[in-house]
Amino acid sequence: MVEGLVDRLRSIVGARHTAGPRPRQLDDWRRLLAECAEAKGGEVSTRTRAAALAQTYLGLDDEGRHAFLRLISLEFGPDPARVADAHQAYQAAVGTAAQWDAEADLRAALRSARIRILTQFNAIPQGVKFLVDLRADLLRYLEDDAELAPLDRELESRLAAWFDVGFLELSRITWNAPAALLEKLIEYEAVHEIRSWTDLKNRLDSDRRLYAFFHPRMPMEPLIFVEVALTDRLADNVQALLDEQAPVFDARRADTAIFYSISNTQAGLRGVSFGNFLLKRVIDDLQRDFPKLRHFATLSPLPGFASWLRRNPQELAADLPDAELGALVSGEWTRDLATARRTNEGLAQLAARYLTLAKASRGDGRLPLDPVARFHLGNGARIERINPLGDASAKGLKQSIGVMVNYLYDLDELEHNVENFAREGAIANSAAVRRLARPK
Amino acid sequence: MVEGLVDRLRSIVGARHTAGPRPRQLDDWRRLLAECAEAKGGEVSTRTRAAALAQTYLGLDDEGRHAFLRLISLEFGPDPARVADAHQAYQAAVGTAAQWDAEADLRAALRSARIRILTQFNAIPQGVKFLVDLRADLLRYLEDDAELAPLDRELESRLAAWFDVGFLELSRITWNAPAALLEKLIEYEAVHEIRSWTDLKNRLDSDRRLYAFFHPRMPMEPLIFVEVALTDRLADNVQALLDEQAPVFDARRADTAIFYSISNTQAGLRGVSFGNFLLKRVIDDLQRDFPKLRHFATLSPLPGFASWLRRNPQELAADLPDAELGALVSGEWTRDLATARRTNEGLAQLAARYLTLAKASRGDGRLPLDPVARFHLGNGARIERINPLGDASAKGLKQSIGVMVNYLYDLDELEHNVENFAREGAIANSAAVRRLARPK
Amino acid sequence: MVEGLVDRLRSIVGARHTAGPRPRQLDDWRRLLAECAEAKGGEVSTRTRAAALAQTYLGLDDEGRHAFLRLISLEFGPDPARVADAHQAYQAAVGTAAQWDAEADLRAALRSARIRILTQFNAIPQGVKFLVDLRADLLRYLEDDAELAPLDRELESRLAAWFDVGFLELSRITWNAPAALLEKLIEYEAVHEIRSWTDLKNRLDSDRRLYAFFHPRMPMEPLIFVEVALTDRLADNVQALLDEQAPVFDARRADTAIFYSISNTQAGLRGVSFGNFLLKRVIDDLQRDFPKLRHFATLSPLPGFASWLRRNPQELAADLPDAELGALVSGEWTRDLATARRTNEGLAQLAARYLTLAKASRGDGRLPLDPVARFHLGNGARIERINPLGDASAKGLKQSIGVMVNYLYDLDELEHNVENFAREGAIANSAAVRRLARPK
Amino acid sequence: MVEGLVDRLRSIVGARHTAGPRPRQLDDWRRLLAECAEAKGGEVSTRTRAAALAQTYLGLDDEGRHAFLRLISLEFGPDPARVADAHQAYQAAVGTAAQWDAEADLRAALRSARIRILTQFNAIPQGVKFLVDLRADLLRYLEDDAELAPLDRELESRLAAWFDVGFLELSRITWNAPAALLEKLIEYEAVHEIRSWTDLKNRLDSDRRLYAFFHPRMPMEPLIFVEVALTDRLADNVQALLDEQAPVFDARRADTAIFYSISNTQAGLRGVSFGNFLLKRVIDDLQRDFPKLRHFATLSPLPGFASWLRRNPQELAADLPDAELGALVSGEWTRDLATARRTNEGLAQLAARYLTLAKASRGDGRLPLDPVARFHLGNGARIERINPLGDASAKGLKQSIGVMVNYLYDLDELEHNVENFAREGAIANSAAVRRLARPK
Repeated sequence: MVEGLVDRLRSIVGARHTAGPRPRQLDDWRRLLAECAEAKGGEVSTRTRAAALAQTYLGLDDEGRHAFLRLISLEFGPDPARVADAHQAYQAAVGTAAQWDAEADLRAALRSARIRILTQFNAIPQGVKFLVDLRADLLRYLEDDAELAPLDRELESRLAAWFDVGFLELSRITWNAPAALLEKLIEYEAVHEIRSWTDLKNRLDSDRRLYAFFHPRMPMEPLIFVEVALTDRLADNVQALLDEQAPVFDARRADTAIFYSISNTQAGLRGVSFGNFLLKRVIDDLQRDFPKLRHFATLSPLPGFASWLRRNPQELAADLPDAELGALVSGEWTRDLATARRTNEGLAQLAARYLTLAKASRGDGRLPLDPVARFHLGNGARIERINPLGDASAKGLKQSIGVMVNYLYDLDELEHNVENFAREGAIANSAAVRRLARPK
Repeated sequence: MVEGLVDRLRSIVGARHTAGPRPRQLDDWRRLLAECAEAKGGEVSTRTRAAALAQTYLGLDDEGRHAFLRLISLEFGPDPARVADAHQAYQAAVGTAAQWDAEADLRAALRSARIRILTQFNAIPQGVKFLVDLRADLLRYLEDDAELAPLDRELESRLAAWFDVGFLELSRITWNAPAALLEKLIEYEAVHEIRSWTDLKNRLDSDRRLYAFFHPRMPMEPLIFVEVALTDRLADNVQALLDEQAPVFDARRADTAIFYSISNTQAGLRGVSFGNFLLKRVIDDLQRDFPKLRHFATLSPLPGFASWLRRNPQELAADLPDAELGALVSGEWTRDLATARRTNEGLAQLAARYLTLAKASRGDGRLPLDPVARFHLGNGARIERINPLGDASAKGLKQSIGVMVNYLYDLDELEHNVENFAREGAIANSAAVRRLARPK
Repeated sequence: MVEGLVDRLRSIVGARHTAGPRPRQLDDWRRLLAECAEAKGGEVSTRTRAAALAQTYLGLDDEGRHAFLRLISLEFGPDPARVADAHQAYQAAVGTAAQWDAEADLRAALRSARIRILTQFNAIPQGVKFLVDLRADLLRYLEDDAELAPLDRELESRLAAWFDVGFLELSRITWNAPAALLEKLIEYEAVHEIRSWTDLKNRLDSDRRLYAFFHPRMPMEPLIFVEVALTDRLADNVQALLDEQAPVFDARRADTAIFYSISNTQAGLRGVSFGNFLLKRVIDDLQRDFPKLRHFATLSPLPGFASWLRRNPQELAADLPDAELGALVSGEWTRDLATARRTNEGLAQLAARYLTLAKASRGDGRLPLDPVARFHLGNGARIERINPLGDASAKGLKQSIGVMVNYLYDLDELEHNVENFAREGAIANSAAVRRLARPK
Repeated sequence: MVEGLVDRLRSIVGARHTAGPRPRQLDDWRRLLAECAEAKGGEVSTRTRAAALAQTYLGLDDEGRHAFLRLISLEFGPDPARVADAHQAYQAAVGTAAQWDAEADLRAALRSARIRILTQFNAIPQGVKFLVDLRADLLRYLEDDAELAPLDRELESRLAAWFDVGFLELSRITWNAPAALLEKLIEYEAVHEIRSWTDLKNRLDSDRRLYAFFHPRMPMEPLIFVEVALTDRLADNVQALLDEQAPVFDARRADTAIFYSISNTQAGLRGVSFGNFLLKRVIDDLQRDFPKLRHFATLSPLPGFASWLRRNPQELAADLPDAELGALVSGEWTRDLATARRTNEGLAQLAARYLTLAKASRGDGRLPLDPVARFHLGNGARIERINPLGDASAKGLKQSIGVMVNYLYDLDELEHNVENFAREGAIANSAAVRRLARPK
């Protein structure tokens, strides 16, 4: 396995650039990685060496990083022969007193040097952030290079252990937070762009809340954050929510909390889920501060709506026979009142069908196609209301043709919905949405 | 496997007490644990249920806890048949492009529900401390019940990930620390008992330092701590160090730091090592604050010395033909100056031989028998000096017949020593210690 | 005025010791103080010089400090001639537009260099604490040297400005407070001695509260603190309250808060009152945390009771004709049940008369003799109940012959009581206390 | 005095508006203020009432506030008759043992209810900030109403005690500071406007420092702040310093610290000086962090330069006979290189004369006319270099015709300079500046 590696590395590297890491450089890395794997000179020295190696990694370009990660993935895995022996002993021991030791031995045989090496990188300052970013690299390279998969799986599993929700801190972020942190919100906001510090300050006003999860070792890095508006009705339009000129609502009178933006910030934590815990804990915190709150709902985009219509022109034709997708996305139809009314009716029906009927190809074919729907329905929310022209921004038109949806978190039915969704893919709906989705 | 469990549980339980957890109770636990393992009703609800289960655990007595942990260990392990299939696929794939997926699949087949369940307990407040304490229970039960081993190994592995040294915070503890924390030092000090708050305050005076490692999720629980005296010579007597009446040394003049007590505090973290990192980082911190420091050494007990002499009377006879172990341990010989001088000479030679020649039965027969020697030599220190009557306390006489030893941390030779110790069991010594250890 | 000073200084100094500050030393001080007063070389340099002078002060013995403070008091006061001119201008201007400037000029003429000098001492680290301690010195010397009065008055006035209650922070002190702070509570507790760290921990348990006022520039120095017991009845015995073995009361069920110890800690803040604010804010805080609390009362000693009986034997003879003060103070009478019952009856009547009728000689003759009664009645509390044998400690017997009293803070009548007490010296009483106090 | 007040109030009020506070309202205030002055019902209740009064004040418009402050100033001053008696007793006692008590009594007679009332306002949350802002109001009203002077003087004196430099905290402000605090810097910057958050971030980069003084009771309010650039030469151009595109200088190599902006933020603290302490402590802090720093200098505007030239056309004519002030201020002359060179030469000479010869009318005629020069020369700095076109912004041209000046803080000569400046108004100059200032 090892023998062919340099060639293989050279081939992938060579396929892209004329110059890549030289064989000698690969040999240096190989030697250093082996020293890390063996903890030569003791754990303390090893960490120091690993830190140097991590610094080296930071200095590499994408090509070098890819080669470096391949080296770890391909050469520092478990030894198949040792695994075979341990497995044989394990199966022989099943049912006897020796089973338990044999199980542990098999597990040990599978434990690879890869994760030992990566964990040692944790020794540099901000080591956790380093590994999260390294996995973000890995995920990018993985798209074209499936042989990185075992390293990715091991790293994901380790990050899942480190980012267990029990370790995360829920923090409310206010205008008193450090500018260096607030700046990250501006950078990371993935749903409704924060246009300026004034826009941000407006989102932190007394009728708003912003919560984030933090890891104790990444103190200035929000992992995921949610923006909440306190109001007295189910909000149907995001421009109205974000209007900096709008009067401030007296939050003590609020009976409804609208989650109008949820952003994951760390590409390297893909597959490590904590978004559902976030909403649960935010709801707890809001209930404590505002005992009059009765309704918890989102105002969400339908990010896959326009592409679904593009791939399914017959759907569009059925509800809006005169419409043309390009024109819809441009938003020109919104100018004429009559056209807008008619189009909105059709869009509401289309959106209802899209959300409740369109399924993702991956999984068992029962998961909704829309990723935001998957998230909230998986959390036990129900599709409460479709809001045509809920987001008239260029992005809103392009992705969702302006449609937004309220997912309602009814605390009494959450667990029931989660169960049904998980068991049979059942999608919870309000009667109004069911009516819209019904074939004519 | 599952079928016989209740009987087996009943048998171990019955072997001790007439009453233990009733079958119905075990069935309840089994059902709840299965729900946790399947994450029924969603992760958020599962965590809530797991928290309830963890609270239940806290209410059980040892018998109940043992039965509970057996349930997890025996019934929530991997399925041997599924492991066999995955292994077959893996071996078939070795050397092909499919190897990496197959490796991940085999790993997944071995991933048990046990650790998933335990991790969910992390949801209770102070969940990490709960799991550390649960493992302390587990280690106690394990002494008589080897079938708990797989659960223990999986938990140790998870705790090792969580307590990676990259997550630990080194803190200096002063008299300004919370009383609730200082109280824990009094409770946990394992080497030289802290007799009173005055004694503790003396150990935190301006010529002393006390450092501890903390985990961000166990904020008031030191994991390990070291007590340091700043002085101008290699200390040879611990009573002198702990004398509350002794004048305070001007620390700015210090050239030597003596580590005179190192205590691990969490029984549940056995096997998760961070002591070597502690000393390294303490030395860094001391060097920053006291640039004149040149020497770093311990003043350590020989906890296994008296028992070794008991098991090896010929050694005692060789060096101290007139002495009798019972009398030595009683300390009466210290009263007569001439006797004391003669005895001390013999004890120094015996201690030197004990430290350099007596080997532990476990491992490959090259590890020193003395656990403190194992720790410091494994860190790269050398045995610098033997100090007869270095600890004249009752405990010091009983364990070490009053002898103490200085292990010297020479920063230039640490790595070299670690290497030699790991490769060939070589023990670093000063010339004086070598002379003492030489057979006459 | 200045001319005779060295002689006068020499005389007071000489009256006590043969050696005192030499004339040359006084000249040095005089020169340095004059430089401070003139701010020679700029304010920044002056502060540096003042800091040096403050350090000098700390190195002096009582005699030196006394001489130093006299120097400031006598030589750095206002100039009577300048005051006379300013006063004449002021009186001439009264009623005209020039009155306001003239008033300011007169005030400026009276502003002395003394306080300017003292304020400059504030530049040393912990300068505020330095000045508070300097005033404690001053108050001691003042007992025998009335010429220090103007300095004391000016310093008191400045400290009153700095320790305005608006600047003080109310903090709850728990077992999580720094040991260095808790140690001060042990040192400062003036009512019921804290015997050990265990005793202190018991006073910080979940059925207790301890609050203190802090100044932002004296962060580890409680200025005054109060100890509170949460209970379900009007406590009548302090030994029961302080019993470390007593079971912990479930504070959520408490309807009564007992203030059982209030200690002023800074002798140098005499005359700067904040105790009444403390109780008010503690009551606010308790009400927020324990909404069921209905009653707020003290359990207080009668510190002047025994001395009053000593000075008024006829009172004792009237109620306890057989008793002898020395025997009462010894506590032997408590051993025989019948004697104790009879004695306690008499003591209750005597205590009621002492509290309600005995008047202090200072003031207008309407203030209660007992200092604790003065404090609580001045705050608007009423004398609720007399508890014979409420404090059977040696100190309790010696000062109060074991009697304790509950002052009740009835929030509805506080202001009314304060008013009546201030206007006519009216003492608020329960009916039971009135009955006891009634002449037979 | 009191009798005519309502009329007088009505007159000033009436002079501006038809409606002002009604007589009844004034009577209410008078009654409430009198209750505060007497502390009716106890200090605790009084503070509550004072807080209500302070809240009332916040609700008033300028006219109401002015009337309210007049009421305090005119009706709650000392009683001239009582002052006369106390003064007579004082003068009679001078030289006798009774002098010291008499001095204290006179002082007490002058102590007015005004300051007692104002101090009580300190009880509201953010009471200190309230009083600082109240004084800012007072200073505005004082411009047209000299009868507010005694209140202003008393308040200034109290604020000076509270804002003693010993209470102030020097803090370094970084990009990690709360946005709510950084926003205040943008608002308060008085010298070189902060144009955006990006501009601010640039001023907090690694080659910059920003320090502020804070009061412990105004935690988010910088009192004064200074912006520092770390560099390797005496900066001569502020646009270059503020250029966001300029590369970041490696601060470890810096030998020069340039103070390029100093802003006082609290109008209500006029007359309470701490700016000189700020620079001293900033220099200390910089020296600790950057031991290579040798030079400390400002890059300062000449805010009164253009107006001085306007009032002294003969000066302009002497050095720049062809120039016309309006054209200079417009900045058009900077476009032609030859003209610019010639003009700059003349401006340098004019600026040198302005700084060294132009005197303020207030004081004893020895103070420099330029306020920035007064501040730095008063601190002991010397005029080091004149930089024509050091600030080509519109504001820089309008105030200073683009000229900037470096004041150098030479630590060895500071005290000497302060002394000479204070004693004889001597202005410290470099030889180059002396040459420029020399009459031709």
